[in-house]
Amino acid sequence: MIVNRPHGLAILFREALPPLIILTLWDFVVVVLFQIFHQDWMEQPALPISLMGSALAIFLSMRNNAAYNRWWEGRTLWGAITNNCRSFGREAATLLGGRPDLARAMAAYPHVLRAALRGDPPNEDTRRLLTPEIYEKVFSCSNTANMLLYQIGLGVRDEVERKGIDGAVHGTVDRILSDIANAQGGLERIKNTPLPAQYSLLPEIATHLFCIILPLSAVQTLGWITPLGSSIIGMLFQMLDRSGRDLQEPFKQSVHALPMLTMARTIERDLLQPIGDTPLDPIQPINGVQP
Amino acid sequence: MIVNRPHGLAILFREALPPLIILTLWDFVVVVLFQIFHQDWMEQPALPISLMGSALAIFLSMRNNAAYNRWWEGRTLWGAITNNCRSFGREAATLLGGRPDLARAMAAYPHVLRAALRGDPPNEDTRRLLTPEIYEKVFSCSNTANMLLYQIGLGVRDEVERKGIDGAVHGTVDRILSDIANAQGGLERIKNTPLPAQYSLLPEIATHLFCIILPLSAVQTLGWITPLGSSIIGMLFQMLDRSGRDLQEPFKQSVHALPMLTMARTIERDLLQPIGDTPLDPIQPINGVQP
Amino acid sequence: MIVNRPHGLAILFREALPPLIILTLWDFVVVVLFQIFHQDWMEQPALPISLMGSALAIFLSMRNNAAYNRWWEGRTLWGAITNNCRSFGREAATLLGGRPDLARAMAAYPHVLRAALRGDPPNEDTRRLLTPEIYEKVFSCSNTANMLLYQIGLGVRDEVERKGIDGAVHGTVDRILSDIANAQGGLERIKNTPLPAQYSLLPEIATHLFCIILPLSAVQTLGWITPLGSSIIGMLFQMLDRSGRDLQEPFKQSVHALPMLTMARTIERDLLQPIGDTPLDPIQPINGVQP
Amino acid sequence: MIVNRPHGLAILFREALPPLIILTLWDFVVVVLFQIFHQDWMEQPALPISLMGSALAIFLSMRNNAAYNRWWEGRTLWGAITNNCRSFGREAATLLGGRPDLARAMAAYPHVLRAALRGDPPNEDTRRLLTPEIYEKVFSCSNTANMLLYQIGLGVRDEVERKGIDGAVHGTVDRILSDIANAQGGLERIKNTPLPAQYSLLPEIATHLFCIILPLSAVQTLGWITPLGSSIIGMLFQMLDRSGRDLQEPFKQSVHALPMLTMARTIERDLLQPIGDTPLDPIQPINGVQP
Amino acid sequence: MIVNRPHGLAILFREALPPLIILTLWDFVVVVLFQIFHQDWMEQPALPISLMGSALAIFLSMRNNAAYNRWWEGRTLWGAITNNCRSFGREAATLLGGRPDLARAMAAYPHVLRAALRGDPPNEDTRRLLTPEIYEKVFSCSNTANMLLYQIGLGVRDEVERKGIDGAVHGTVDRILSDIANAQGGLERIKNTPLPAQYSLLPEIATHLFCIILPLSAVQTLGWITPLGSSIIGMLFQMLDRSGRDLQEPFKQSVHALPMLTMARTIERDLLQPIGDTPLDPIQPINGVQP
Repeated sequence: MIVNRPHGLAILFREALPPLIILTLWDFVVVVLFQIFHQDWMEQPALPISLMGSALAIFLSMRNNAAYNRWWEGRTLWGAITNNCRSFGREAATLLGGRPDLARAMAAYPHVLRAALRGDPPNEDTRRLLTPEIYEKVFSCSNTANMLLYQIGLGVRDEVERKGIDGAVHGTVDRILSDIANAQGGLERIKNTPLPAQYSLLPEIATHLFCIILPLSAVQTLGWITPLGSSIIGMLFQMLDRSGRDLQEPFKQSVHALPMLTMARTIERDLLQPIGDTPLDPIQPINGVQP
Repeated sequence: MIVNRPHGLAILFREALPPLIILTLWDFVVVVLFQIFHQDWMEQPALPISLMGSALAIFLSMRNNAAYNRWWEGRTLWGAITNNCRSFGREAATLLGGRPDLARAMAAYPHVLRAALRGDPPNEDTRRLLTPEIYEKVFSCSNTANMLLYQIGLGVRDEVERKGIDGAVHGTVDRILSDIANAQGGLERIKNTPLPAQYSLLPEIATHLFCIILPLSAVQTLGWITPLGSSIIGMLFQMLDRSGRDLQEPFKQSVHALPMLTMARTIERDLLQPIGDTPLDPIQPINGVQP
Repeated sequence: MIVNRPHGLAILFREALPPLIILTLWDFVVVVLFQIFHQDWMEQPALPISLMGSALAIFLSMRNNAAYNRWWEGRTLWGAITNNCRSFGREAATLLGGRPDLARAMAAYPHVLRAALRGDPPNEDTRRLLTPEIYEKVFSCSNTANMLLYQIGLGVRDEVERKGIDGAVHGTVDRILSDIANAQGGLERIKNTPLPAQYSLLPEIATHLFCIILPLSAVQTLGWITPLGSSIIGMLFQMLDRSGRDLQEPFKQSVHALPMLTMARTIERDLLQPIGDTPLDPIQPINGVQP
Repeated sequence: MIVNRPHGLAILFREALPPLIILTLWDFVVVVLFQIFHQDWMEQPALPISLMGSALAIFLSMRNNAAYNRWWEGRTLWGAITNNCRSFGREAATLLGGRPDLARAMAAYPHVLRAALRGDPPNEDTRRLLTPEIYEKVFSCSNTANMLLYQIGLGVRDEVERKGIDGAVHGTVDRILSDIANAQGGLERIKNTPLPAQYSLLPEIATHLFCIILPLSAVQTLGWITPLGSSIIGMLFQMLDRSGRDLQEPFKQSVHALPMLTMARTIERDLLQPIGDTPLDPIQPINGVQP
Repeated sequence: MIVNRPHGLAILFREALPPLIILTLWDFVVVVLFQIFHQDWMEQPALPISLMGSALAIFLSMRNNAAYNRWWEGRTLWGAITNNCRSFGREAATLLGGRPDLARAMAAYPHVLRAALRGDPPNEDTRRLLTPEIYEKVFSCSNTANMLLYQIGLGVRDEVERKGIDGAVHGTVDRILSDIANAQGGLERIKNTPLPAQYSLLPEIATHLFCIILPLSAVQTLGWITPLGSSIIGMLFQMLDRSGRDLQEPFKQSVHALPMLTMARTIERDLLQPIGDTPLDPIQPINGVQP
């Protein structure tokens, strides 16, 4: 995720350059054909382009709203994981009366989850934080994050049985595990259910069509400055389309993705500090981008 | 659900072809009548079509928002079922201390539910996962999924009584069953309550009307290229209308429906793997479509 | 609620006919005055009507969104009642260990509620399902549905005391009653709080004004076909306005209301089947309309 | 809150009259200056007013959505208080086994809250329903409603200790008090956090500016009927602006405010009837307005 | 946060002045170049500016909606902290039977949180309300607010063990701590996740571009009054853009930020008054701005 204004501007500019160049070239072709070779069929009136613009506006605003909501829901669900992991850490100390090993297993949970959401192999952080025994059990299952919660649940149960802890307290701790399972399921839902094909493909195609027709419609009145006017407007619509596409897959490897490594480290630190462990340093942004 | 970009493009194109052909034919009729037979009554000014366009825009954006929200709510409720089934599996092991048969009965639950939501007869997966005794009880009731939850609830109660488990723990497990019942009820609500007739019928009619009038309004200025301009714009509005219609019934048999078989199998696997059963393989997309 | 496409079309057409006739008559008056008696003051330019159209668009989209959300929230709250009634049925059997009389009293609850929401006297279903003793107590109170929950709560408490059931289990069952009370309160909120007067009255008045001015603005350019163009556009806006009005009162007696009788019967069946009672048949739609 | 259609129309008309008169006067000044004194600088083209209209549309629709959501959230939170007060009444009888004095104290709660939300001194209803002892304690605190919940909580605790009631049951009752505290906090949030100054001031200023410029832009084409066309359109935008302003402060003394007295009386009745007290009659609307 | 209408107007006017001056200067340059030096290339038709306006409208309404939602979610989460702190105070007295020191520690919590959200060093209020022992532990951790909750949790646990309080009661109190942790996590999420770069940078750039091109497009028809027309419209769009930017970072030091000091003091007072402490006075707005 971009967290720095100047870097962000540079990144957005670099991404916008290729379509901008293609757009301007096409605008020049149109204006040259019209002004020099006087192609009459190019004299397009304004009506079609404005009707097209309003269909495009509906498409883009629906898609971008849906994409932004997916991105923000993804972030909110990671937030829920953060909160509940912290609460689990507190409860491991107060309700279960100790068990730092469970807090450490929970500190590995976000690292297991971020690997699963990106389809990556188990990462170094996971190995560092889990005991070999749990590590092996977790990665023998296809849904690794779910299996880790399951193992933590078994650990809680052992503690409850050993100390004869009240059933209501056990229920309270288990509620936190269910809340984490709910947030995890929400993240998997966003990952496994892309935007409907109509919403992800059609706005892109319609934007390209619009940019192709735009100079034809403008050249009659704008004349030689068509490339300027037409590429500014075309660029705005391209950027609107691109903003939506950048956000619709919040977990894939890209500068616009959610900073899952940063968040996982934060959770790890918030769990390890209170039990007296010395955690690794927080992740720093690289070139204005949080990984 | 379409999960593959090239296949998705092909499917959308195939669906768009018939209206596109009809639209273009009508545009040709209009342009030929106007250009060759000079029908004066066809010279329509731009105002009505743009006012019509803005009424249509309100209709389409309201309907499509409602349809997308229904689709996404349906997906979110299936997600809630996924999460709570997993949590039930964990609790069967940790809070109730065993009972893999309850986890297996819960693994059948999504299969019972997907058949009920589509009005299908009981499927093979259900028979495979349920004991004959429960199977018979479940399918003697009209609301099969509700009856299965009821039977699981009775199983939980037997375990609680046999082991003398604390009431608070029983309450915690029962809470998960209530959460599943809530999600199931939400899915039935979406299935049983179609979009209001005004929202599902009027946008379609208005879009057709708009596409019929469009070339009449454009032919005066666009002349011979009317079919091109008019069918591009008409196609955009047809596709907007279609996008909404595809999403408004998320459970019916169609390539745009939610992938209920895939989700049910995922839940089954997540429940069976931790108790040591070897589950069936995950469902693979066929021609870019998840069933 | 309309659940059948052809019937729905017929109903919507029948409702649309009177305004369509009035609109077309007025359009004829305008065109005759203009074309035959040449009233110059009628030559209105396009600007005012398009500005008016955009104010109207804001009004209508705000009102219709609010109305749709009321309707869908009403449906969702009925869904919550369905889910929690079912969960109560399950809990009466599993947590309380029996008590079919409480399940039957709960089966009467939706019937009591639907009568209260529509201001109807107690219906036949209520009398059939409640014991005379509870029936009398319930209908001696002004908020009948609340009193029925209160009586069920007292029944639960007797059972808890008689069997010495754990307080946590009592709390779990009571939570379901509170969830039902929350959904009931939400339905009463929608019933007792109409849309603000500005949102229900002004869009209607603005739409009528718009339809009166529309032909004045179009007659200059459209000439003799004004009635066609003007009434199509006027009709679209009238239907937008009507769609909102139909949904804003989801409980009043109308073909667009929520199918409360159908839902109440479904709940009744889902509660009675598992305890072995033979319930009445589900409600069937009449002429495409669910009552 | 306006609950009666004819009265509502009259109230809205009375409120709309002053701006309508000012608007029409200004329109006459413009048309007279233009038509009689031929001020050429008045010939404004249409472009600026339509761009201004679209900026205004964004402002108004954002502000009105925010205002409506505040109003409806306020109503929903009062609904939550209604539901939880009723549930508390049920629980006082079933879980605590009696204690009508606590139900009576809770019946005073909405009256304490409505006075606090409007900044009023303690009202008559509060004095009638509270015991002098609690009354004194409550009004010695700055947050009176919070202190009343605190006192009810102490009453619940005494009962729990006296009867040796289970901790889980105590927790269930306390959950209802927390839910009431959450709803109360939500109402205070809406009261203490006005819409951001940009959203409450700028749309109003922009609407006035728009209404001043509108006749200048229309007089050239509309001529002598400018006052009619311009004041209809100006009035629509004024009413849009006003609709938002009416709803953004849902607790202040106005005919558009939430009917807090009516709601408080309803809660009081729903709490007192089941314990056998004879409550006061429901509040009746006065001239179509619920107080 | 601005809470006073006249002051608010003055602040908004002061903020709007610099862009207004620059805008008007540029408009004058354009009109002088056009009217005096007759630069023909300046004759721009209306089409491009209106297409640009509609792209800008989508950008601004998406960004402003997102920004407003962030601001209001921030306020709602602070509200949740308020409510749960109060409920904790009530529960410390009723469920735990005393422990004013825990209520005092909780009164420090919002002060710790507001410093953390703004990146400030520990403030005076924190020192005043916390015991030195807890103070030291809290500020030795990187996430101070989380550590304070952890310490309060340990305090609750001591009390539970000392008095032999029921596990269900412990679970109920712990639920409140988890709810506070959830709200805190939500606030940190808003702080740590800025709006996507596309949403915060592009609308600003597009608005500036629009304001530069606007007079070029208007000068041909508006002539000498271009600066008036063009700067009113440009100003409206600048203010729309600015409204969004003001709200998108609700915690940073600015007159538009959430009044965190005021809210923290309110929570402190609501916690200390019922236990008999004499709290500090509420915070008063300074020049119409709540700090």
